[in-house]
Amino acid sequence: MTCTASTVSTADLMFTLGTQAKAAAALMAKAPADRKNQALRVLAHLLRTQGAALAAHNAQDIERAQAAGLAAPMVDRLRLTPQVLETCAQGCEQLAAMPDIIGEIMGMKQQPSGIRVGQMRVPIGVFGMIYESRPNVTIEAASLSIKSGNACILRGGSEALASNQALAALVTQALRAADLPEHGVQLVPTTDRAAVGALITMPQFVDVIIPRGGKGLIERISAEAKVPVIKHLDGNCHTYVDDPCDLDMAVTVTDNAKTQKFSPCNASESLLVARGVAAQFLPRIGAIFAQKGIEMRVCPASKALLAPIFGANVVDATEEDWRTEYLGPIISIRIVEGLEAAIAHINRYSSGHTEAILTRDHLHAQQFLREVDSSSVMVNTSTRFADGFEYGLGAEIGISTDKFHARGPVGMEGLTSLKYIVLGEGQVRR
Amino acid sequence: MTCTASTVSTADLMFTLGTQAKAAAALMAKAPADRKNQALRVLAHLLRTQGAALAAHNAQDIERAQAAGLAAPMVDRLRLTPQVLETCAQGCEQLAAMPDIIGEIMGMKQQPSGIRVGQMRVPIGVFGMIYESRPNVTIEAASLSIKSGNACILRGGSEALASNQALAALVTQALRAADLPEHGVQLVPTTDRAAVGALITMPQFVDVIIPRGGKGLIERISAEAKVPVIKHLDGNCHTYVDDPCDLDMAVTVTDNAKTQKFSPCNASESLLVARGVAAQFLPRIGAIFAQKGIEMRVCPASKALLAPIFGANVVDATEEDWRTEYLGPIISIRIVEGLEAAIAHINRYSSGHTEAILTRDHLHAQQFLREVDSSSVMVNTSTRFADGFEYGLGAEIGISTDKFHARGPVGMEGLTSLKYIVLGEGQVRR
Repeated sequence: MTCTASTVSTADLMFTLGTQAKAAAALMAKAPADRKNQALRVLAHLLRTQGAALAAHNAQDIERAQAAGLAAPMVDRLRLTPQVLETCAQGCEQLAAMPDIIGEIMGMKQQPSGIRVGQMRVPIGVFGMIYESRPNVTIEAASLSIKSGNACILRGGSEALASNQALAALVTQALRAADLPEHGVQLVPTTDRAAVGALITMPQFVDVIIPRGGKGLIERISAEAKVPVIKHLDGNCHTYVDDPCDLDMAVTVTDNAKTQKFSPCNASESLLVARGVAAQFLPRIGAIFAQKGIEMRVCPASKALLAPIFGANVVDATEEDWRTEYLGPIISIRIVEGLEAAIAHINRYSSGHTEAILTRDHLHAQQFLREVDSSSVMVNTSTRFADGFEYGLGAEIGISTDKFHARGPVGMEGLTSLKYIVLGEGQVRR
Repeated sequence: MTCTASTVSTADLMFTLGTQAKAAAALMAKAPADRKNQALRVLAHLLRTQGAALAAHNAQDIERAQAAGLAAPMVDRLRLTPQVLETCAQGCEQLAAMPDIIGEIMGMKQQPSGIRVGQMRVPIGVFGMIYESRPNVTIEAASLSIKSGNACILRGGSEALASNQALAALVTQALRAADLPEHGVQLVPTTDRAAVGALITMPQFVDVIIPRGGKGLIERISAEAKVPVIKHLDGNCHTYVDDPCDLDMAVTVTDNAKTQKFSPCNASESLLVARGVAAQFLPRIGAIFAQKGIEMRVCPASKALLAPIFGANVVDATEEDWRTEYLGPIISIRIVEGLEAAIAHINRYSSGHTEAILTRDHLHAQQFLREVDSSSVMVNTSTRFADGFEYGLGAEIGISTDKFHARGPVGMEGLTSLKYIVLGEGQVRR
């Protein structure tokens, strides 16, 4: 990073970053796997050995945040603790140990003309990432970018600028050590909001934008971007307890899906229960929810079963509740006639993130998998599993609720494209 | 189609089409393969038996076009000749005979938690297609939409409205005969240009827009769309004659790439020649070009070899020539030092459509395949092969010069998305 906001305008700065990223992308795309893996291992080493220097920069951000009166949980998200850095280092090492997917050739088939046609996996080119608060995202994005042979331009939250700059300096050092272009990963070195506006409107330099943050940020970026956006909007996830189901399993999995953590996007926000099992199932799960202090917003039929026992925790659901991602100790509950009604409810109200059916019926499981129109559809397990690491992707740069390009957890493959390759021996078109 | 422009506003009309398409998409997505194939075979039958009725509607368009003084080649593009209809019918039958790709499950792997994770191929949902003149595109788009389990909204050229409506009526009839939703394929029944503006800004109904037409149309749609666009911009395709190469093959293939047809996007517009073979190769290909009346716009080094022999056909190339898609009897020619210079020239000037290397050197072939950043990269064959039929895709809805989602010829797969599916036996997240 050689530009600073003080010497050039933000527009010029972003043009420079874009030009450098484009040039670096061509070199990253053809970098051998071992050089990319070396950079990741050097980066892991630096994250473990440069903790003191990082802590000093991190302290600046934390002081500024506290002085600005940021809430304690927000300040905590800024902290680069030794545990956070060790997790980042392990992430880099895990990526280094994974197979390289660039250059993979698939589907090569001979055509009637005699030419052989297949597809080769190549990097997307340059991605721009816009994120808030947690500085460790800088390392997650940088490492995934290096492994997938892309270049990236990172725009972190203004409250984490010092930490992000210190981390980005380590990334640059790791790239140099592995003889990779230092502009392979660039951090926008200014908090000027015009930088975001520039980043999302440079189709000549940037192939895709990945925003990570609140719904407002993502909607604004999607509306204004002149390049494709990999969007992650809400996670209004559903768990549907079918008739017939294994009741013990249904209780355990539903509990996990809602209460293991409240804040992740893959926590279930809405529980649908088949009428045939409601009388047995709802009092059992209701007891767990009540004991954990979870508010139940319920349909009239559920109310009849739940209110007499857990009165204080039971509230009438409104139409708005079926659409709401609570990210907290609240769940909406509705009794439905059966599978068809459950699928209809989900396809109407879901945000298309993740839905699960808990069932013993094979045909119901198949129909749910086919007909639910969400990025992850699950049978007999917890929606909390919708995650790049749990899916074996090695790392995750976001979860796409779009249908276009990448859908669901986005790892290395989501940052690649397939180009056609054609091999001939002099064939011509007739 | 029950709406007409005379009774409702265009905005209301498009809202109705969107609502109907969305509802139809859910039914198309779960339609069994045999019903979709039946619709395609019925459509083929109707195209063969309803020629007289189609001809009457087609005649209206042709009369209007002639009265409006449209150039003869443009009028010809409107004609639904028996040959055009037979080709459409065969296309439908070919699609019906192809395997169904919806519901295909791939990559199912067990993860450390015990869950099994894979991906299922599903339709995109609703696509909007905007195209000009040729009415047969109505059948190509409709048939691909049916086979891929999508719903679509088609907006053809105003000059072909009567023909398109007659064809769309046959599609509706075929959908009904196969017990598929008649709104699975809808044609916008008005020439009001506001319909296009509405179609590209209804993300609640439309998942992707596919424009087919001039660069101006596509750029305007891309700039204004609020949904993803599968873009096909120019085809400034290159053929690079390497050192060493098989000279006879190089002459044959280069000739085919440029002269077999001038107007397709996959015709080569620029010829790069390695210095080491230029003196042998250029006079031979120059003789063919001169004989076929092709103007050669050349670099100084090429000029020294070509101008003395083919003076009248040889012109100095300008910087602009390296970027130009001629779509006519003109080719730009440049001598380059070798492979690296050829790749650099292509990655700088190409539109990213299709490029070919003609070589005997295995390492050169591999490097060209890896490093050329275009949607199709070829070895020892003609760029004219870049085509969905030639690639075995069965049909083609366009050729994408984007890297995002679909790249190169777009067939059925480009109209699908992959959702994650997860199978468990009660696993919960720890």
